[in-house]
Amino acid sequence: MTRALVAGVGMTKFGKFPDRSLGDLGREAVLGALDDAGIDGSQVQIAYAGHARTGRLHGRENGVGQLVLWESGIRDIPITGVGNFCASGSSAFREAVFAVLTGLYDVALAVGIEKLSSRAERGRPLTSDGMELEGEFGFTPPAFFAMAAKAYMAETGATPEMLAGVAVKNRRHASENPYAQYRDLITVEDVLSAPMIAEPFTRLSCCPTGDGAAAAVVVSEAAAQRLGLKRLVRVLATSLTSGGYRVGPLGWFDIDRRAARAAYEMASVDPRDIDVAEVHDAFTATEIIHYEDLMLCERGEGGRMIADGDTALGGRIPVSTSGGLLSKGHPLGATGIAQVHEVVTQLRGEAGPRQVEGARTGLTHCVGGFLDGDAASSCIHILQSN
Amino acid sequence: MTRALVAGVGMTKFGKFPDRSLGDLGREAVLGALDDAGIDGSQVQIAYAGHARTGRLHGRENGVGQLVLWESGIRDIPITGVGNFCASGSSAFREAVFAVLTGLYDVALAVGIEKLSSRAERGRPLTSDGMELEGEFGFTPPAFFAMAAKAYMAETGATPEMLAGVAVKNRRHASENPYAQYRDLITVEDVLSAPMIAEPFTRLSCCPTGDGAAAAVVVSEAAAQRLGLKRLVRVLATSLTSGGYRVGPLGWFDIDRRAARAAYEMASVDPRDIDVAEVHDAFTATEIIHYEDLMLCERGEGGRMIADGDTALGGRIPVSTSGGLLSKGHPLGATGIAQVHEVVTQLRGEAGPRQVEGARTGLTHCVGGFLDGDAASSCIHILQSN
Repeated sequence: MTRALVAGVGMTKFGKFPDRSLGDLGREAVLGALDDAGIDGSQVQIAYAGHARTGRLHGRENGVGQLVLWESGIRDIPITGVGNFCASGSSAFREAVFAVLTGLYDVALAVGIEKLSSRAERGRPLTSDGMELEGEFGFTPPAFFAMAAKAYMAETGATPEMLAGVAVKNRRHASENPYAQYRDLITVEDVLSAPMIAEPFTRLSCCPTGDGAAAAVVVSEAAAQRLGLKRLVRVLATSLTSGGYRVGPLGWFDIDRRAARAAYEMASVDPRDIDVAEVHDAFTATEIIHYEDLMLCERGEGGRMIADGDTALGGRIPVSTSGGLLSKGHPLGATGIAQVHEVVTQLRGEAGPRQVEGARTGLTHCVGGFLDGDAASSCIHILQSN
Repeated sequence: MTRALVAGVGMTKFGKFPDRSLGDLGREAVLGALDDAGIDGSQVQIAYAGHARTGRLHGRENGVGQLVLWESGIRDIPITGVGNFCASGSSAFREAVFAVLTGLYDVALAVGIEKLSSRAERGRPLTSDGMELEGEFGFTPPAFFAMAAKAYMAETGATPEMLAGVAVKNRRHASENPYAQYRDLITVEDVLSAPMIAEPFTRLSCCPTGDGAAAAVVVSEAAAQRLGLKRLVRVLATSLTSGGYRVGPLGWFDIDRRAARAAYEMASVDPRDIDVAEVHDAFTATEIIHYEDLMLCERGEGGRMIADGDTALGGRIPVSTSGGLLSKGHPLGATGIAQVHEVVTQLRGEAGPRQVEGARTGLTHCVGGFLDGDAASSCIHILQSN
């Protein structure tokens, strides 16, 4: 699959912006992506909007894309809302890629938006969809993933300091990213001594809530040529799968493993070819476990990757150079496209002080869902400089 | 565009089923569509789920497709949620068609589900997203469309009796459709004397709320051959556009007009080639106005179409042979795929007492949105017997 290219990316700073509307946030990302691509809004032929909580928090279960495009001055094109939990933005990007691959459209826009800092239903925990009952009793995502973390630690010998090292690393990366929600450097001691949320996770081991938007322009090769677009990044693979958060023998997530296998096969690349990756680090331990799910290291070696600095800037395979969900932030629907933003920036060699030298192939990974039934989604994209 | 085919359709009866879950409703539709296609769930490679209100009414803004497929025994495939107001089901069908057109998948499933008969937020009017304030003051969809109806009547001379004739016709069609929510015959007098909702609309001029699900299997030509599938219906066009409910000189909806033009062009068919159509008859007057938007008649001739019986079974171009939204019912996310269900049934010559003789080419049309901004969506599909 080599026919879809990312021509431009844009995003807002992530943070808490209770006074900004969904339309306002989305517009900044869309206009940024158009400007980055060097095209005009009138050249966009189709759009997809990813959002996961705008209905329940803001009374907009539908039409967020319409709002955003209207505020961006883009009129009368097909717009479809896409939802897939924390992978809603990734899924919107994927549908934009599909639209181009159909041959029916050659300039597509994906935008992801979320605003978590204000909400209609105050006082209730922000659980995954369908987990209200569990949420009332405290079984929120941190509690579930803490259980996976404990299992992983018991089986591999990964230490609390290794876990904390993920938060420290990603904060160091975020300190160089002007779009990140939290940029002040932290230490392992800061992470371990922060208020406990669900052992072994302290507050600094969990991604924050926040607001933001991100957008990407996806084009065909013909459109890139016709419009004279430069600085293109190739979409080598888009992989999405569903299933349960079945935890494997070493605390692995079967769903991510399957998504990764499919992505590498579609892209015809080996995990060792990945130069830079944005991984779904909703919690410190999950980034480590995902190293193994994504085959960036052998089973049980994830903790060592952190201890050895393999996934820090300057290491063998820098992960979450943007600061990741932990420090760049995690406005659900925006996250997957913000990951594309970071990897595209890296593959173009435009990441400034956080540039991964010689980065040619990059990966994005988002996973989300609820825990009953078999209802998670894992979405992976592999991108390559053109 | 001739590469996507509908291989099977299934749906639940529409109605009020407060004791059935989203998963249970969806499963019945999915298993029905698989059975109709003659394939097994393990042959489905990708799925899209359309739903518009499951988040706000049932705490499931994401993952409804995962729930439904899990209950249907389908595991580990890509599943994406799709939302577009009343066109959510149509949009899910469209994405399933796109998935096949990418060449990456050749057996796709679209399912639409909604359950409106029970809700978390009791006592508030069921408005479109983003219309809560207007809704509190009574400016709900019936009020808005009543204004359009009055403008249309003033300009064209369409009478209250003509409007009522749409409800009478669609109920007559529904009386022959076992899936319809309301099947008892009604008269023009019944419609005119029912409780007034928003002049000229009485309760029988407005579609009901209800629950239900519908599903369709979309395949490539290669898959159809490989799996030995029969009774195929060709997808000639999928058209989606966005914009405002700008009302034209005769009460037209500009957005539907644009969607129709694009659909006819993509299908390379003339409006006169359409043998049967499912039109978004959320209100009696809107079906009439949509005759003109869809170019099934000349400007201002919509009322006469009803008076002359042109769109009744046995007429020149039967519309809403299923009973339409008015009598078959309108569980939002299910509606667009239920329209595909009806047209496919007609094009295969399997509609029994409501069969349109010799039907070869059919059209489905859904439109929805809110009234501020520019935020509606109109989605049209043109299907043809293979």
